[in-house]
Formats: sequence, structure tokens, C-alpha cells
Amino acid sequence: MHVAIPLYPRFTALDAVGPYTVLAFAPGWTVTFVAAERGPVADDKGTLLLNATASYAELPRPDVIVVPGGSGTLDVLSDEALVGWIRQAHEHTQWTTSVCSGSLLLGAAGLLEGREATTHWAILDFLTRFGAEPVSERVVTAGKIVTAAGVSAGIDMALTLLAQAADPVTAQSVQLAIEYDPRPPFACGSPGTAPEGLAERALGLIT
Amino acid sequence: MHVAIPLYPRFTALDAVGPYTVLAFAPGWTVTFVAAERGPVADDKGTLLLNATASYAELPRPDVIVVPGGSGTLDVLSDEALVGWIRQAHEHTQWTTSVCSGSLLLGAAGLLEGREATTHWAILDFLTRFGAEPVSERVVTAGKIVTAAGVSAGIDMALTLLAQAADPVTAQSVQLAIEYDPRPPFACGSPGTAPEGLAERALGLIT
Repeated sequence: MHVAIPLYPRFTALDAVGPYTVLAFAPGWTVTFVAAERGPVADDKGTLLLNATASYAELPRPDVIVVPGGSGTLDVLSDEALVGWIRQAHEHTQWTTSVCSGSLLLGAAGLLEGREATTHWAILDFLTRFGAEPVSERVVTAGKIVTAAGVSAGIDMALTLLAQAADPVTAQSVQLAIEYDPRPPFACGSPGTAPEGLAERALGLIT
Repeated sequence: MHVAIPLYPRFTALDAVGPYTVLAFAPGWTVTFVAAERGPVADDKGTLLLNATASYAELPRPDVIVVPGGSGTLDVLSDEALVGWIRQAHEHTQWTTSVCSGSLLLGAAGLLEGREATTHWAILDFLTRFGAEPVSERVVTAGKIVTAAGVSAGIDMALTLLAQAADPVTAQSVQLAIEYDPRPPFACGSPGTAPEGLAERALGLIT
């Protein structure tokens, strides 16, 4: 199974590398980072440079795509090189997936019309602009499209995907290999459980 | 606060990028990837190239170091460029941390003698070779040394670290910003909860 993860300026590193690590650990799965052209792409903090090793033109028909989010997402919603690649790749994928604001790019490609989808809690309503039905869930599956909530949700999404696209035992093996037995130090990872005022602080970190 | 994350051939991507993302989201924190020399370093799957933007010589005194693990760890236990940098950086750090087999590198640098520490479940006993006391916990704090269990545990470690090195509200804000409200699809992320036989399969993915 060949997975492609497109990179664009100011993507969020964990959006891409969480699913990357899960899927790259699966036997027989290969993951390639792609971009408009080969070379390093800087993340939303400007301090991480991840290399695209193939251009969009070089990888037009991956089996799976994972579109990451990031503070740069809004700037590339009308980038036809990226959005056009997503739209065309989707015609042949077995699974089309996103993490965080990456689902807005699926929306811009016209893939979410009338479908349930999710994204980062801070921008959930934004999905309606693309005709999607926003759902406040960690992972949302709508046919072959799988969208995840913010940043770290890509790990849960990728394991969920692997259980369906490969088999549950493969997904469980990867989960144990990466020791994914999370123990968040606080119970504040979603707005519903966070103490009052924390959402404003968190928004200050991502905008 | 300046954080340095050393990269070496066949590191595990999520070991580095989980803590990176957590710490880089914190206001006033900067994270730099370092290596023997600047340039791309390939991960343990060979398909992810992350760039070191400073050499060890260029960043001798970071405030915090986060040493990732990976299938390449054993090959660099006697790499004096890396191990020497860890040993000397530690003299001035406020916090010296590791993820997964990264703690073996702290051990090789002579930092774990008589200290409690943890690492990936598959190699926990290996820590005794460095005089450490292996502890099967997600995150272990021993003075200014903080070690994490396998791969994904780096996220929990970095949030725990941030709560101590900055303050709990900053850590909570980051946790909410990256929507870290994990929902693992299976209850098999540690050997204690995994079904029989899964550990052998998981080991096959990491060796």
C-alpha cells in the first residue's frame, strides 16, 4: 500500500508525522512525502524542515493520501497544484484522509459536499463552507474519506484506518510497537473537558 | 527556552516530532534539530528526511535536550560526536530528556548511573547495563533527567516537562491546542494490556 502525504508551507509537523509513523510501521506499507517540487518544506513554527522526496507529478496515483493541517492551510485553499492533485488523486485512492485543518483542503477539492467530516475544534464550523456536515468526533469515516480532529488525532485516525485497510491485528501490532498507551497529564485535550478560559489561551498558540 | 533534539541515522520520527510539536507550541520556546553536521537525516523507515539546522558544535549549550530513540540507537551508542555532545550539554541543561531507546544514549553518556529511568517496553532491561534502575512507567523523572517509554510516550513526556519547566496552564494550553484527547482504537498499547502473541508481532515491526 502506497501512502502519500502532501507538504505545504506552515503545515503542522505532528499532523503529518503521527500518521506517517503509524502507517510506515505497517508491513508492506510505504509512505512518501510529496510537494509541488522535491525538497525541504518548513512547518508552522519555521523550525522543522521535512523533505518532500517526490513531486505531485511524480506520484499522481497513491493508494492512500493523508492531508495534514497547519496554520498555512488557509493560504493554500486556492493553490491548484495542491488542491488539483488531491482532487485527481482521490479519483483513484482506496482511502482519502486528513488531519486537523487538512479537511478544509479536502473540502476545497470538492470532496466533502454532503458528507460528514471533522477538523480541529477551533474551526469546525468552517467545514460548512464546503457543504460538509461538521461532526465533533475524534475520527469520522464517510465512505472512503476519513477525517481526524486536531493535530494529535492523526495517530488515532491512522490506527483506525489501518484496522480497516489492513486488518485489526496489524493495527494492534503497530499500536503496541509504538507503545501507544497514552497518559495525557491533564484532562483538557478538548474544549468540552478544558477549564474555562483555556480555549482562548490555546487559540493564541495556533493563530 | 531553547530545546535541541539530536538526529542520527534511523531515529524514529514520532520520537522526535511528538515532543518537538508540543514544545514548539509553547510561547517563548524554540526547538532546533541538531546533528553531527547540518542537513537531512533519514529515519528508521528510510522514507522520512528531517533536516538538522545546526551542528553539535553550533549548539553546545541548549537549555533542554530531547534524545529520540529508533532502530539506529544501538549503532550510535559509541558515537562520541553524539554521546559526547549529550554528556557535555547535560552539564548545562535545565532538563535532559529522552524518548524510547533514546535513554540508552543517556546511559552511554554516563548520566543514568543509579537513577530510575524508562525506555521502550521491549528493551527495558537493557538499561541495567548503564547502571540505571529500569522503571515500567510512561514518564520517569529523576532530578533533571526525564525519560519516556516507547515512541508515542514522548508526547506525554513533553507535556509533563512543560508543566514543570514552564507552568501547568501553559502545558494545558498546548494540550488543548494540539487537541490531545487521545482515543486509541484498541486497548493494546502496552504489553500488560495486549492480547497474547501480540508482543511477538510488534517486535517484528521494530527490529
